[in-house]
Amino acid sequence: MGDVVENREWYLAAYCPEGVPTSEHLKFRTVSLSIASDSIPHNHLAVETLLLSVDPYLRGRLTGTLEGLFISQYQLNQVITVFGVVRVIRSKDSKYNEGDILLNRSAPVAEYSIVPSSDIARKIDATIGISLSDYLGSLGIPGFAAWVGIEVLGKPKVGSNVFISAASGAVGINAGQLAKIRGCRVIGSTGSDDKVKLIKEEFGYDDGFNYNSESDFDAALTKYFPDGIDVYLDNVGGKMLEAVLNHVNKYARIPLCGMISQYNKVWTEREGVRNLLNMVGKEVRMEGFMLESYWHRFGDFAKDMERYIQEGKVKSKNKINIGIESFLESLNSLFSSSNIGKVVVQVKA
Amino acid sequence: MGDVVENREWYLAAYCPEGVPTSEHLKFRTVSLSIASDSIPHNHLAVETLLLSVDPYLRGRLTGTLEGLFISQYQLNQVITVFGVVRVIRSKDSKYNEGDILLNRSAPVAEYSIVPSSDIARKIDATIGISLSDYLGSLGIPGFAAWVGIEVLGKPKVGSNVFISAASGAVGINAGQLAKIRGCRVIGSTGSDDKVKLIKEEFGYDDGFNYNSESDFDAALTKYFPDGIDVYLDNVGGKMLEAVLNHVNKYARIPLCGMISQYNKVWTEREGVRNLLNMVGKEVRMEGFMLESYWHRFGDFAKDMERYIQEGKVKSKNKINIGIESFLESLNSLFSSSNIGKVVVQVKA
Ligand SMILES: NC(=O)c1ccc[n+]([C@@H]2O[C@H](COP(=O)([O-])OP(=O)(O)OC[C@H]3O[C@@H](n4cnc5c(N)ncnc54)[C@H](OP(=O)(O)O)[C@@H]3O)[C@@H](O)[C@H]2O)c1
Ligand SMILES: NC(=O)c1ccc[n+]([C@@H]2O[C@H](COP(=O)([O-])OP(=O)(O)OC[C@H]3O[C@@H](n4cnc5c(N)ncnc54)[C@H](OP(=O)(O)O)[C@@H]3O)[C@@H](O)[C@H]2O)c1
Repeated sequence: MGDVVENREWYLAAYCPEGVPTSEHLKFRTVSLSIASDSIPHNHLAVETLLLSVDPYLRGRLTGTLEGLFISQYQLNQVITVFGVVRVIRSKDSKYNEGDILLNRSAPVAEYSIVPSSDIARKIDATIGISLSDYLGSLGIPGFAAWVGIEVLGKPKVGSNVFISAASGAVGINAGQLAKIRGCRVIGSTGSDDKVKLIKEEFGYDDGFNYNSESDFDAALTKYFPDGIDVYLDNVGGKMLEAVLNHVNKYARIPLCGMISQYNKVWTEREGVRNLLNMVGKEVRMEGFMLESYWHRFGDFAKDMERYIQEGKVKSKNKINIGIESFLESLNSLFSSSNIGKVVVQVKA
Repeated sequence: MGDVVENREWYLAAYCPEGVPTSEHLKFRTVSLSIASDSIPHNHLAVETLLLSVDPYLRGRLTGTLEGLFISQYQLNQVITVFGVVRVIRSKDSKYNEGDILLNRSAPVAEYSIVPSSDIARKIDATIGISLSDYLGSLGIPGFAAWVGIEVLGKPKVGSNVFISAASGAVGINAGQLAKIRGCRVIGSTGSDDKVKLIKEEFGYDDGFNYNSESDFDAALTKYFPDGIDVYLDNVGGKMLEAVLNHVNKYARIPLCGMISQYNKVWTEREGVRNLLNMVGKEVRMEGFMLESYWHRFGDFAKDMERYIQEGKVKSKNKINIGIESFLESLNSLFSSSNIGKVVVQVKA
């Protein structure tokens, strides 16, 4: 490999306050990048990107305001960054060597990059039989979010009635399996009949329903939760959250992981939840969380999850889109019902 | 006193699903009650009522459904019960003697009654310089609710920015003073300019505003919370809660004490809160509570609060309406801005 590479990358061309982001907002370009030893600062690494994680929270970094997710905004004209699996080409940090495979919390959506080693979350041992894409799925953001939502905040007991929305998504698949490990009765909602079938047959859900064909969420929850809901891991917000609040049991917990049905709307257009009063009488705790506040637990999570995967207790499902050019399309696919499991872009095999 | 008394009482004539309860729902009648020794069962007491506590949650016991507050409904044709201060006339429980003044958790809204001693919350020592009505105010339901909301769930730190709605009400006055004892900056909203003046001058609030003259709650909160809100004790719900969610700081806590602005509406007519997504990014915890779940803390609360009252750190304000016949009017007055502090009905001096 020479000292200068032709580097294809996605950058922010314009903020997108409303609606699904398009090629007007995220654009693709080719730049030259020097990876010569003397262009790599101390404690930095030159890396090539293997896999990129495509997550709904990225939508929140494109709005141009802090509203809603209150996460730092991408900068105009700069390459965007995501969770990614990278391989070291050249190292200026004695902890890492050429060839090391690493999980980068802030990987540029580019074929190559020079990154501070402080962005590295962990080294990956590619020999233990876990696929690299799982480090972005069950062992990455969605797996960690599922773990925080179920284990840290939801804390269901054996026999608890657990409801999970976006159940066939990356978080949902992991959360359902974690709740089953805890001995719960687990019901999911998702966007098609095939997906309902899949979460039951492959991922241990006791039952589920297709929210696109249920005109009355309240009736569906009456049917699937004759004994009420103890824990609701909310991934979608809006009308589904409102319906859940009519079925909560005393002391129910609602970890708010995300509200994907509301991300593409300005706040005044979002669906109002009218029955929060139910939270008083039922003494419900609803709590939002962002993974950035739980990094100190990442090690605990990774240990648990690796064991579950190796014991076959957690199965994963990754939708791998080939080629960095598929990044925008992959992001947009999150806002339809077109995927199952974790969406990953494979930049290099 | 003879063995039979003419007893005036309020009973439930019809449930009231919507709107403010009227004399169609709660009716007044006179019945004869035997207080002869042999009509008093073992572990029961014959008592005369001194004071009755008038609280917003009573509205929830009149709806005829569990919706909203999910508390047990009054029974048709039966006398209703509230928190009250009573004096023992005859005792069939060796723990209590004639003349004892007691706090009854479930006092019939009647001049006389025969009650199980298991309903007694505590004995009152009338000689320690605390007025009997304070046992229903700062030392009763609203004081306890303020304590649970601030001390147990809100847990503000020195310098935290605390917002309290219905600030001049029974809960609000106590909550504001408890937050000041914790060293917080405390702002309240209430229904008139005079009340705003009062909470500042008498009850230690740093500032406040009249929600009836603020057309834009969002602008008011921008003005009063330049550094955002760390704890919001919600007493009113609806649009005020929505406005607060646009001003919450990271990790803000919202103990849901009540939502009085929504009690007289069926749930589908209640105001929808559109910005719950803010709870995800700001990692906000919102938690409903009912005092029935905190009885094991009542002793801790009473000890703290008695000390604060005796040290002059908590001042109380009670609106005492004379005569049991004023009960319905007193209840309805809670749903207007006509009272300050704790509303009590004095049945007997
Ligand atoms: N708090 C955190 O730190 C954190 C971390 C990771 C993820 N999250 C959140 O967790 C949620 C799930 O994330 P994920 O990674 O697992 O994404 P994902 O499920 O892989 O992808 C999103 C899925 O959501 C469903 N969806 C899209 N639009 C919807 C709508 N309008 N109504 C209902 N469902 C809709 C779609 O599935 P179907 O329609 O087929 O069901 C889609 O496949 C998101 O809200 C995300 O923001 C939060
Ligand atoms: N969770 C529990 O266990 C528990 C226990 C006790 C009380 N609570 C709740 O705490 C809240 C306050 O109770 P409280 O005993 O202190 O009653 P209160 O404040 O003495 O009386 C109610 C006050 O609420 C205000 N209000 C009435 N209608 C309103 C509306 N539409 N919008 C805004 N404010 C309105 C009025 O004051 P202004 O309009 O003048 O401000 C009124 O004086 C209630 O929601 C109650 O249900 C809960």
